[in-house]
Amino acid sequence: MRLSRFPLSTTKETPADAEVVSHQLLLRAGFIRKLGAGLYTWMPMGLRVLRRIETIVREEMDRAGAAELLMPSIQPAELWQESGRWKLMGAEMLRIKDRHQNDYCYGPTHEEVIVHHAKQDVRSYRQLPFNWYQVQTKFRDERRPRFGLMRAREFLMKDAYSFHMDAADLDREYQNMRVAYAKVFERIGADFRIVQADSGNIGGAKSEEFHILAGSGEDLLAVSTVGSYAANMEAAACPPSGKPRPAASQALEQVSTPGQKTCEQVSKFLSVALTAKVKLLVAKGREGGLVAIALRGDHELNEVKAAKHPLIASPFEMAKIEDVQAAFGCEVGYLGPVKCPVPVIADHAALEIADFVCGANVNDHHLKGVNWGRDCDVAPGYDLRKICEGDASPDGQGEIKFYRGIEGGHIFQLGRKYTEAMSFTVLDEQGKAVTPEMGCYGIGVSRLAAAVIEQRHDKDGMRWPDAIAPFRVLICPIGTDKSERVKAVAEQLYADLLAAGVDALLDDRGLRPGPMFADADLVGIPHRVVIGEKGLAANQYEYKKRGAEKADMIDASVAAVLERLNA
Amino acid sequence: MRLSRFPLSTTKETPADAEVVSHQLLLRAGFIRKLGAGLYTWMPMGLRVLRRIETIVREEMDRAGAAELLMPSIQPAELWQESGRWKLMGAEMLRIKDRHQNDYCYGPTHEEVIVHHAKQDVRSYRQLPFNWYQVQTKFRDERRPRFGLMRAREFLMKDAYSFHMDAADLDREYQNMRVAYAKVFERIGADFRIVQADSGNIGGAKSEEFHILAGSGEDLLAVSTVGSYAANMEAAACPPSGKPRPAASQALEQVSTPGQKTCEQVSKFLSVALTAKVKLLVAKGREGGLVAIALRGDHELNEVKAAKHPLIASPFEMAKIEDVQAAFGCEVGYLGPVKCPVPVIADHAALEIADFVCGANVNDHHLKGVNWGRDCDVAPGYDLRKICEGDASPDGQGEIKFYRGIEGGHIFQLGRKYTEAMSFTVLDEQGKAVTPEMGCYGIGVSRLAAAVIEQRHDKDGMRWPDAIAPFRVLICPIGTDKSERVKAVAEQLYADLLAAGVDALLDDRGLRPGPMFADADLVGIPHRVVIGEKGLAANQYEYKKRGAEKADMIDASVAAVLERLNA
Repeated sequence: MRLSRFPLSTTKETPADAEVVSHQLLLRAGFIRKLGAGLYTWMPMGLRVLRRIETIVREEMDRAGAAELLMPSIQPAELWQESGRWKLMGAEMLRIKDRHQNDYCYGPTHEEVIVHHAKQDVRSYRQLPFNWYQVQTKFRDERRPRFGLMRAREFLMKDAYSFHMDAADLDREYQNMRVAYAKVFERIGADFRIVQADSGNIGGAKSEEFHILAGSGEDLLAVSTVGSYAANMEAAACPPSGKPRPAASQALEQVSTPGQKTCEQVSKFLSVALTAKVKLLVAKGREGGLVAIALRGDHELNEVKAAKHPLIASPFEMAKIEDVQAAFGCEVGYLGPVKCPVPVIADHAALEIADFVCGANVNDHHLKGVNWGRDCDVAPGYDLRKICEGDASPDGQGEIKFYRGIEGGHIFQLGRKYTEAMSFTVLDEQGKAVTPEMGCYGIGVSRLAAAVIEQRHDKDGMRWPDAIAPFRVLICPIGTDKSERVKAVAEQLYADLLAAGVDALLDDRGLRPGPMFADADLVGIPHRVVIGEKGLAANQYEYKKRGAEKADMIDASVAAVLERLNA
Repeated sequence: MRLSRFPLSTTKETPADAEVVSHQLLLRAGFIRKLGAGLYTWMPMGLRVLRRIETIVREEMDRAGAAELLMPSIQPAELWQESGRWKLMGAEMLRIKDRHQNDYCYGPTHEEVIVHHAKQDVRSYRQLPFNWYQVQTKFRDERRPRFGLMRAREFLMKDAYSFHMDAADLDREYQNMRVAYAKVFERIGADFRIVQADSGNIGGAKSEEFHILAGSGEDLLAVSTVGSYAANMEAAACPPSGKPRPAASQALEQVSTPGQKTCEQVSKFLSVALTAKVKLLVAKGREGGLVAIALRGDHELNEVKAAKHPLIASPFEMAKIEDVQAAFGCEVGYLGPVKCPVPVIADHAALEIADFVCGANVNDHHLKGVNWGRDCDVAPGYDLRKICEGDASPDGQGEIKFYRGIEGGHIFQLGRKYTEAMSFTVLDEQGKAVTPEMGCYGIGVSRLAAAVIEQRHDKDGMRWPDAIAPFRVLICPIGTDKSERVKAVAEQLYADLLAAGVDALLDDRGLRPGPMFADADLVGIPHRVVIGEKGLAANQYEYKKRGAEKADMIDASVAAVLERLNA
């Protein structure tokens, strides 16, 4: 390709509204252009990266035995009503009325559609298992789209759905997809982690996310320093430590703590460690009413975990302050599990301390020397908190360190949630109707492009790996206005590289070296060959790998260039 | 690919709601599945055809020097307000409100978006000309979606947009695209015609459509029996014949024609040919008021042409009957150009007859022996009618014959309509701001798949050309339940063909020959190799080309198969 064919428009200035590096560089290099909030056009140079990622994803899905199809972006509401999600999905789902006032949505995901089609075409166990995938545009109406491609409203996704006669076969395909996904992430040159995840409102039992590690990542990951444990914050487990609770050694005592409402204030006021305090939060109960949650003073509530407790409302909601004050007869800064007027559940860690401090359920007063079992019932234990850096890894190997990650893929074992809701059955060998098990597997194709940039860039621009670079090699002829020879040699090298099957880009815009090299670094093509009169006099080209300290002189031959490309 | 990997579901029954052959066969062969009105999922086998067409389109666009980009499907209303089309587009444009109640549409076309981006990135004549294209999902909210892919609501389209410093350069690129389109239509194996077309509400001067000829086509085409003239009905020109009007030979006479309102009735009642009658239709005027249109009795009004007349409202609208009766003082069956109370314009053919019959502008009366110039002013002549079969070709070569066609492509010279409305200028060599000329070029990628089927099918199913077939060759092993040898030979041939780069499909479902061959014919893969014990005993395979009368026995070797594929 010749650069003269792209009206490539690059800028030195960092766009004001671009907060992360990938967004800044994609705009500066003219890879994408904004059309509206969370809406981006892929300009020719950027689209080449997207297509390369798409091709890698497709190759690995095909290799793994999935079959590609293509479902409409616009989906009838009826299917979502059938699955029960029409009401559950919030404002993120773009709802549409057609000219006849019928309800549709712009598909944020395709579970309903795929089950609908499977019902039409699949009736026998002989047709199972199968895995259908598509690469399709999705829309999620984010309240505040930002970070460019990272949290766009319209984006490109690969979504796959598999169907199985039993859970064991689903698990087999889940592992198959896990391997295929790992290959995709390796091939695009990403440093990634597979982390345990919560299934969220998509439902199902087991799920894992593929995260590209980057300081700008929106997600916090808990990764063990030893072994393979990794989970996102929502899913990271905090099991009981296994250590028995120490015996009580202090007497219960009510102390005056005027105006001391937060754990930090009380801890300081009474000179006790935060870890020796129990705090009480109050949530809405699943059947109405209130439920108190006891946490150790230094811990934070994990609402996703809490919402799974059978007593607590799902989705999780904190109780209203006025309701809490009415029930407890005191302000929310002074709550505690002793003589608590509502049911109490406790995080495991809160149950493992003795002689703790907590609110007295009396304004301006706390209790000291409190002990479970002696001063109040031992609350039922549950995993309710967010994991902390330095915690022991839940698998017992090493301790937890936090990383930031960009979610690029997500695999789920959905079980029978959708097949059951939509009454999809097949006949087994005995002619009995069986509800298939289902898995689903997504990759954010357009997001991956941005995530790779977050990992691979320097002050001058992007640094694409060969596998997904818009072009592999850039030919920069210098001084073509003065030298016909440079021009001719550059054209010949360009033609020879194309003939050798190398995806070469020729900068035939006639720019001066400064702007030409600045563009080259910004666009981040992995290999650069500079052709100038001076080099040609010694029968040499200048070769530089993007990101290398220095350029080298090489023989002025295709063979020499190919040798560097394949080094 | 192995057929066992597709849960392919075929049927013998013709689906009740499928009116055209392509829709019937696509459903029967499991190539597509309906999701909702005008919404179809491409199942794995069908998607392969779509992707092949897409690839051919992309190759020809790249070869012609266009650069691919990808614009969002969802477009902000602001851009359409800027071009003035937000109000002009009817209910076919799917309008959407996001969570913040901002207006968007699902793009039916992308002129506004592309001009918006060109404005952002292109400022100098040096960056022109360029041609940007995309392959993107479009949505048109058809009132009555039908004929399957032919008139679906969501469909895949290739749309390209070019920008130029002057009209001559636009014309050059238009011809370049015309050649590229012809190559696409040739490569997909279609019998097509390039016809002159009206630009419709997209605007602009010159446009042509690429039609695939098929009896089921929605469009009527006027094609000359000699030479290259071809146009769609809206655009087919009806210039003056060049013959002078005969001299008047009859006296003007008012005759009683009680209850005879239509041309046919009057013609019969007065025993005059329809071609000797002038009828008067009344349309709304561009500045309000009414305008009368005189046509020869046997001709029909072409509303698209009429709307281009400066006196007539655009879009065209017939006058209300009560307004006509109020103006003329008689019923609409008795109108004529003599003493006409509103301005009259006439189709050229109506001006070429003498001694004609027309309404008397008096109830139950007509005039005979009417002559332009003598009995009323000679109305200004204009091309206002639909062309008829048997008419002389407008280019003077041969006469017109009608064909039915399916519009698969459309190329336009838009001129400055959008660049001007959206204030897109570039600086020319002298530093003067110039508004670029614009062209646009569309191919209905998904529609092409259906159109090819309309041309290429027989009673047993589809007949794909090699270039866009889902697979090139189908391997059918017979009796694999009894013969391990047949199974092994089929597997080996499958592996050998793949190794030779041939896109082979192995029917490993273990079906009996009847259903296996029925599926083969229905799916329409161009080459079929049957492997059975009987043939193998003589060291032979059976080869059959789809659509051939008979099968042949060939050597049981890859070489022999390849020879047939490449014959």
